[in-house]
Amino acid sequence: QGTRDHPPAQAALRDRLLSAVVSCFKRHGAAAIDTPVLELRETLMGKYGEDTKLIYELQDQGGELLALRYDLTVPFARYLAMNKITNMKRYHVAKVYRRDNPATTRGRYREFYQCDFDIAGQFDPMIPDAECLKIVHEILSDLQLGDFLIKVNDRRILNGVFAVCGVPESKFIPACSTVDKLDKVPWEEVRSEMVGEKGLSPEAADRIGEYVQLHGGLDLIERLLQDPKLSQNKLAKEGLGDMKLLFEYLTLFGITGKISFDLSLARGLDYYTGVIFEAVLLQQENEHVEEPVSVGSVAGGGRYDGLVGMFDPKGRKVPCVGVSIGIERIFSILEQRLEASGEKLRTTETQVLVATPQKHLLAARLKLISELWDAGIKAEMLYKKDPKLLKQLQYCEDTGIPLAAIVGEQELADGVVKLRDVPTREEVRM
Amino acid sequence: QGTRDHPPAQAALRDRLLSAVVSCFKRHGAAAIDTPVLELRETLMGKYGEDTKLIYELQDQGGELLALRYDLTVPFARYLAMNKITNMKRYHVAKVYRRDNPATTRGRYREFYQCDFDIAGQFDPMIPDAECLKIVHEILSDLQLGDFLIKVNDRRILNGVFAVCGVPESKFIPACSTVDKLDKVPWEEVRSEMVGEKGLSPEAADRIGEYVQLHGGLDLIERLLQDPKLSQNKLAKEGLGDMKLLFEYLTLFGITGKISFDLSLARGLDYYTGVIFEAVLLQQENEHVEEPVSVGSVAGGGRYDGLVGMFDPKGRKVPCVGVSIGIERIFSILEQRLEASGEKLRTTETQVLVATPQKHLLAARLKLISELWDAGIKAEMLYKKDPKLLKQLQYCEDTGIPLAAIVGEQELADGVVKLRDVPTREEVRM
Repeated sequence: QGTRDHPPAQAALRDRLLSAVVSCFKRHGAAAIDTPVLELRETLMGKYGEDTKLIYELQDQGGELLALRYDLTVPFARYLAMNKITNMKRYHVAKVYRRDNPATTRGRYREFYQCDFDIAGQFDPMIPDAECLKIVHEILSDLQLGDFLIKVNDRRILNGVFAVCGVPESKFIPACSTVDKLDKVPWEEVRSEMVGEKGLSPEAADRIGEYVQLHGGLDLIERLLQDPKLSQNKLAKEGLGDMKLLFEYLTLFGITGKISFDLSLARGLDYYTGVIFEAVLLQQENEHVEEPVSVGSVAGGGRYDGLVGMFDPKGRKVPCVGVSIGIERIFSILEQRLEASGEKLRTTETQVLVATPQKHLLAARLKLISELWDAGIKAEMLYKKDPKLLKQLQYCEDTGIPLAAIVGEQELADGVVKLRDVPTREEVRM
Repeated sequence: QGTRDHPPAQAALRDRLLSAVVSCFKRHGAAAIDTPVLELRETLMGKYGEDTKLIYELQDQGGELLALRYDLTVPFARYLAMNKITNMKRYHVAKVYRRDNPATTRGRYREFYQCDFDIAGQFDPMIPDAECLKIVHEILSDLQLGDFLIKVNDRRILNGVFAVCGVPESKFIPACSTVDKLDKVPWEEVRSEMVGEKGLSPEAADRIGEYVQLHGGLDLIERLLQDPKLSQNKLAKEGLGDMKLLFEYLTLFGITGKISFDLSLARGLDYYTGVIFEAVLLQQENEHVEEPVSVGSVAGGGRYDGLVGMFDPKGRKVPCVGVSIGIERIFSILEQRLEASGEKLRTTETQVLVATPQKHLLAARLKLISELWDAGIKAEMLYKKDPKLLKQLQYCEDTGIPLAAIVGEQELADGVVKLRDVPTREEVRM
């Protein structure tokens, strides 16, 4: 349940998509790493907040207690700490596992690919963070998925907001996960969850509401830097200062047109410590819809400066920032688009079919195809002793093989091969 | 335990190796598929004989009972049956899981890659089987692993041998797994296991010993076809007839020089029904060793005509033959060879580092690198506001970046970039 086989047409489309993503990661100088699908159970515990219950655990069959990785970020942090690496730019494309309620039509599975790019190391503020946003911008533009928006916020700003609104520190994380729902439900519902389930005072909730419904650009950042309450809060001030720097860098990259500083963005995971972001596709505008509507997140990430330290025996920190591309949702969109277009993706790369027009010529086919393979040419033949020529040509048309190399009795006698261009039916002897 | 992280240098080498294997599979017209790492527990049960105990089971957390795949063959058969596919040539490169005793120096892990190529469908005998052997020959030749030998046998011949030696049919499979040890231990030990653990009569064991120590080529096949006992056995006769045909096809492929018909080859898995084969690397000859010695299996496979039917509700059979490349052992060899050569594999593909020679030029670097990325050029910069030029050039040398694009105050004023060839230190303004 919640998993799927990828038949050849899907596997070919997925390969095309993954290589577009990987080529962007390589363009930004990342090296590949790979880590096991299995992690120690204790490595994953306490990293995912409420979602810890979604982790797949392996049966205790003697030996270590194991679980399937839930994402690629925690294994990366574990890898850095284990190998005492303090500086690294890596990408990792691999499957992760979540015992979630699958919603396969929207591309939500229990086994799915993640494509992660992360920068670890102590650097000057916001330079790597800006690069992560540039990467999201490049990938979503390259894939031509239509209009998109990258929402940006900072955990320090959120925590500052909670503090100046009178929320006790112990309730920052629960308040955060409630705010995170603002992209799906209206403020009234979020407010009542804050007051009801999360136990915030109605006044605090109302004050929070004034902030988290704001979104904008540099102007909003400047305004909040002047805000009489927020400007008094150390965390918020730091976060806003860095946000301003980030926007300066994004301006140099020329991508602020698709970036929105959005105070409602919170992201669910516990481990974020600074900048957080999420990219959403906007529904194509049409006559019936006045404003573009979000159709779901296709990338997300942020800064997690404390995670590596959790795996280091001495708690040494390695600051990190990274991005994860939501390949499955993008894949669903591309798949639907391909289906609508009626285009048929080839699932093999075969260049030539070796064929014979008469009986008793299997030996000639085997000799010729062996020569072609040895010359690096992608070649196939039918696995029949005496296939009909029509069947062989039909196979070319069905699978998109462009050429047929035909050896008949006459060709054998003359020491030539007849090469047929399948679509045009033109033939040459060579 | 028994798993490993692949740091960048290993990941780069593994990518190189996997793409050599995949390009051979594509050369033979195979399409890619992907199946989940998780399978239903019942799918895997009863397919691997004694090794079923090595399957990783997931904890029962509610819902289906799951396990991690043990190989890629059983999932492929399940996929064919589930989708009622009767005809397919596919490859699959993915990780599999075995709770075995790891022997990491010899490349034996609990999580490891398999690279499988399989042909499913009802075809004329031995044509797809011969192609599988050709593929092993191509891959091992391409990778320049040194001398190798591909041992071939047929389960029908083995069963025929057991029958004419007086072994009851119920003991064919246990006898098979004992014979399979002949490449590691001398005949005397195998014989005593047969008589002791497996309960064969000493006479039967001795008769088996006369057959299973034979190996050769077409001449041996001809001799056994005349063998007064074997020629009376229907299964053995069929197997020997097909083996003869196989050698004819391999002769046309020009690869019989590396193929040995070896009656001691049995292979452990339950599901094989016809041809079986295994490739071993031979130790390089040197003064001290007269005959080349096997250093372990690097590929294996065979025909399994009954497996798909086990997953079909009506038991409809789809004949299959396939090969699995033992990528981990090959990887170990290549890794040791690379280490010995002292060659350093680049782990990134960065073409140019964007650098500045003075302070306060971060904006210029950000603007230039953004232009390069947008033009599809692989570019990096240091994540410092004001890095020293020497540090920037040192980074190029450490990571093998061939070019540095330098923008200083003069270049900015002149509207040019100074492009430096890092190894030669030559510079041009452009």
